[in-house]
Amino acid sequence: MNKVYNFSAGPSILPQEVFREAAEGVLNLNQSGLSILEISHRSKDFMSILEEAKSLVKELLQVPEQYEILFLTGGASAQFYMSAINFLPEGGTATYIDTGVWSAKAIKEASKFGKIVPASSSKDRNYSYLPKEHHIPNDASYLHYTSNNTIYGTQFSTAIRSEVPVICDMSSDIFSRPIDVAKYAMIYAGAQKNLGPAGTTLVIIDPKICGKSGRNLPSMLDYQVHIENGSMFNTPPTFPIYVSMLNLRWLKKQGGVRAIQQKNIEKANLLYQEIDSNPLFKNEIAREERSMMNVVFDAISPEIEHAFLKFAEENYCSGIKGHRSRGGFRASIYNAMDIEGVQHLVDTMALFSINFNKTNH
Amino acid sequence: MNKVYNFSAGPSILPQEVFREAAEGVLNLNQSGLSILEISHRSKDFMSILEEAKSLVKELLQVPEQYEILFLTGGASAQFYMSAINFLPEGGTATYIDTGVWSAKAIKEASKFGKIVPASSSKDRNYSYLPKEHHIPNDASYLHYTSNNTIYGTQFSTAIRSEVPVICDMSSDIFSRPIDVAKYAMIYAGAQKNLGPAGTTLVIIDPKICGKSGRNLPSMLDYQVHIENGSMFNTPPTFPIYVSMLNLRWLKKQGGVRAIQQKNIEKANLLYQEIDSNPLFKNEIAREERSMMNVVFDAISPEIEHAFLKFAEENYCSGIKGHRSRGGFRASIYNAMDIEGVQHLVDTMALFSINFNKTNH
Repeated sequence: MNKVYNFSAGPSILPQEVFREAAEGVLNLNQSGLSILEISHRSKDFMSILEEAKSLVKELLQVPEQYEILFLTGGASAQFYMSAINFLPEGGTATYIDTGVWSAKAIKEASKFGKIVPASSSKDRNYSYLPKEHHIPNDASYLHYTSNNTIYGTQFSTAIRSEVPVICDMSSDIFSRPIDVAKYAMIYAGAQKNLGPAGTTLVIIDPKICGKSGRNLPSMLDYQVHIENGSMFNTPPTFPIYVSMLNLRWLKKQGGVRAIQQKNIEKANLLYQEIDSNPLFKNEIAREERSMMNVVFDAISPEIEHAFLKFAEENYCSGIKGHRSRGGFRASIYNAMDIEGVQHLVDTMALFSINFNKTNH
Repeated sequence: MNKVYNFSAGPSILPQEVFREAAEGVLNLNQSGLSILEISHRSKDFMSILEEAKSLVKELLQVPEQYEILFLTGGASAQFYMSAINFLPEGGTATYIDTGVWSAKAIKEASKFGKIVPASSSKDRNYSYLPKEHHIPNDASYLHYTSNNTIYGTQFSTAIRSEVPVICDMSSDIFSRPIDVAKYAMIYAGAQKNLGPAGTTLVIIDPKICGKSGRNLPSMLDYQVHIENGSMFNTPPTFPIYVSMLNLRWLKKQGGVRAIQQKNIEKANLLYQEIDSNPLFKNEIAREERSMMNVVFDAISPEIEHAFLKFAEENYCSGIKGHRSRGGFRASIYNAMDIEGVQHLVDTMALFSINFNKTNH
């Protein structure tokens, strides 16, 4: 069978060795005679998996001591409202940077709990750029933004400066580069890109920000409850956490986030270079705003778009169709996509272009 | 290696063939060259898994046409408050049957959103029996109860009659016997017993009950939003749903819930017979109230308890320690535990008793 190159935006590619280890754990975890799928979440085996996952997050991102690591459920979609009800008092104000569909969803959900003031937005040009100036009111309980815009292919290259606490949705670029966690009150990320399979959500939180909204929250929606229970208030999603832990072990073996960032830059440069030089394709995002994770591009005509989509699929490039709200193409080149895979896509684009020229001359 | 018999209360045993198929899907799903862990939730492969899971639920439980099947996250703990905010208007009343720790938690979370009136309770004797009479106010928005009490080993043998809509937590006995879904407005169940691994929650819901609370809910907490989106409003926990589907296929091959109920009765009878006849053990729950899923029992002294716990573990009986809020023993004998496993536990109890008599005479 030919190798399939998986460019899906999420759930997305993970390393082959993680798949092999995960499959082994499904059959017989640590030679225990039991499956990871059947053991109690309070068993020694699972508790040690959870502890290792937490400590790998702390080590890989150099998380300051006072921060807590939680593995929750519901993806970023659950964090959109959960962050608001935890940090926004009745009648309070928060400010949001709007750079895409996911930011807009976060704003919509938070608006149910208080006044949301836009800090900046790039909606006027269909989210094809990143705003440079942000107006952050002093009375805002927090600033929320999305570090990487999976759908539109833009990414903030540095942390946004703010006097108010910063909450950041890093679902699609966490673990792809070093970050300074101390600059954020809370970071959250659905696992299904650079962390693990769908089914768990990483939250890195400074407990100091908790307990100020004055709301009577359901226990499951209260970060403090999860912190007090070491992320074991309810039965956690054991297998998604297990695979996340295996993947973090893999990342550590690769040299951690600094080493993977170098590879990610190399991969992204290779692909953007082809897009910029191949006359059939284009990407009009400013270079310094381009995402290193989700490379969005367009064909120069709908006919070419249609033809290349078919050609790419025939050539084992899976998942490169753009998101339905934007169209075009999107190649997600997360940590687990190696340079060989990106080279294969580049070669496929080049071959398509040669064939096209032959047919049309 | 000796076979380990897994009597854990949840996450818990699943059939060996489900583990084998799940491991295969982690390596190469349907010969696609991709892992179930890396494919998009909107891919054809996953959509067909989700549809098959839903239709197996409908078929196995003979779910009436108008009901919807959802696979959410957060376990029963999330349903405790989510059911309340969806069905309890501001200032409204609901009534709850309190038969254990999980019922009590459901009451605690719902109390944050309205007036909770007890329909009945067995808390006076540490939940060691089931109340027979239930006082259900006519103005209650709904009645909530727990069909099987995992911790205390009691189980309602028939559905509770009620004039108001019934919401039932069936986390630990769903798919263990036939049920008449039409008697419930909503049924929910954390997957990690008879359905699948931890990480997804089954909701069977009559849409007619939705949209009446008048609350402005976050999208993720609104059953109607999940119904309108076919349980795909956000990225669902793809792997836990996949394994649930495989397990439901297995259940269908076993002859469905009527056939499995016969096996479950046989297994439970075998174990209760040993408990009742072995002088070192006891179970004081009335026979008709005993759980067919979680067989709770005690040793006649703390010394014997301690000694048997050790002996059972040495004899490959895993997970029989009782829940920390009750103590003693608990052998969970879900669908995937075969009669050979129960016979092994019975033999272990009998052998322990013989050894004990030898030592003490």
